[in-house]
Amino acid sequence: MSDLAPGLALVISAPSGAGKSTLVHRLLQAFPEFSFSVSCTTREPRPGEQDGREYHFLSRQRFQELREQGYFAEWAEVHGNLYGTPLESVEAILSRGGHIVFDIDVQGARQLRSTLNSGVFVFIFPPSLEELENRLHGRGSDAGGDISHRLEVARKELGEAPGFDYWIVNDDLDRAFDDLRCVYKAETCRSGRNPELYERLVQSAIY
Amino acid sequence: MSDLAPGLALVISAPSGAGKSTLVHRLLQAFPEFSFSVSCTTREPRPGEQDGREYHFLSRQRFQELREQGYFAEWAEVHGNLYGTPLESVEAILSRGGHIVFDIDVQGARQLRSTLNSGVFVFIFPPSLEELENRLHGRGSDAGGDISHRLEVARKELGEAPGFDYWIVNDDLDRAFDDLRCVYKAETCRSGRNPELYERLVQSAIY
Repeated sequence: MSDLAPGLALVISAPSGAGKSTLVHRLLQAFPEFSFSVSCTTREPRPGEQDGREYHFLSRQRFQELREQGYFAEWAEVHGNLYGTPLESVEAILSRGGHIVFDIDVQGARQLRSTLNSGVFVFIFPPSLEELENRLHGRGSDAGGDISHRLEVARKELGEAPGFDYWIVNDDLDRAFDDLRCVYKAETCRSGRNPELYERLVQSAIY
Repeated sequence: MSDLAPGLALVISAPSGAGKSTLVHRLLQAFPEFSFSVSCTTREPRPGEQDGREYHFLSRQRFQELREQGYFAEWAEVHGNLYGTPLESVEAILSRGGHIVFDIDVQGARQLRSTLNSGVFVFIFPPSLEELENRLHGRGSDAGGDISHRLEVARKELGEAPGFDYWIVNDDLDRAFDDLRCVYKAETCRSGRNPELYERLVQSAIY
């Protein structure tokens, strides 16, 4: 029995255009038991957003201080705003047996690999490089030059796939979702993640 | 990417009465791709059985010689006859990417843990000790004393569950089968088990 946290941090990553977010959305619909950690951001709250509910809204300076202190499991800058996931809130969820999904780019996954003690890392592949290119073109408004830059990034990201635990090819959405669902279900069956079962059926049997 | 054989050795074990063989049977029906290795035995061939097809039929002396040489991935004596699985045939199947299921008792699984380089070990639990006792009683012809011995053996076997990778509770056959199916599917998605995918999508992307 390995020494796993009872909760599961499922990190799902892919190059842009592989269809990751659709798969993650289906997973969250199928398994409403996932917990969410509230992220921090430096962007302005939008109407209706409440500090501590949608996000913890921080000044840029405060965010940077926290980042220096190793407060974030991962962080990123998007359109000039900083976003980060507090490590302590992730760890609190995992230690009480809650499961978390990270729908995250390859660079964020790399950060999580170094900050999370455990974590299950899933890489979603596009069916082929040609199909990836088609999908990036399909995203519409981009100029051709932007697409070739994105494709170059995607190629580099594919090169990071060996660092992930599981590989899923998104050639057929239903099949790929079944694979993802199975990875999640199987990981919840890992012997080390079931201390309740251990007490009820193993300890009580042998003592 | 871990250094896994492309093929999967799925070792499914349980105390007697947990319902393991029913689950394995369903798995083999659902996934006809599993390969089978031909075992060795010292029992007499039955009418219609062919040497090298159902079994390799060996003399007791020859079996024992091979056993001393470490020829068997696991072996056992059942009703006075010896049975064994040749390690080299298992390894040949795994290295060409074939998957094998072992439907095996806890003692056999312990042997496989030491002889197989890799292998995915699944432990099937009965829903409870009380239910296990009921099931052992339900097996009919046994005298009460035999059942209490079997229950004692089962309790010891439950104590070995921590050495397994996955735990599945057979409280509901459909749910337990889904877990087992997911363990199998997830393990086939392990990054190290897909060298073809690596060549096609990782290597070709980065070079």
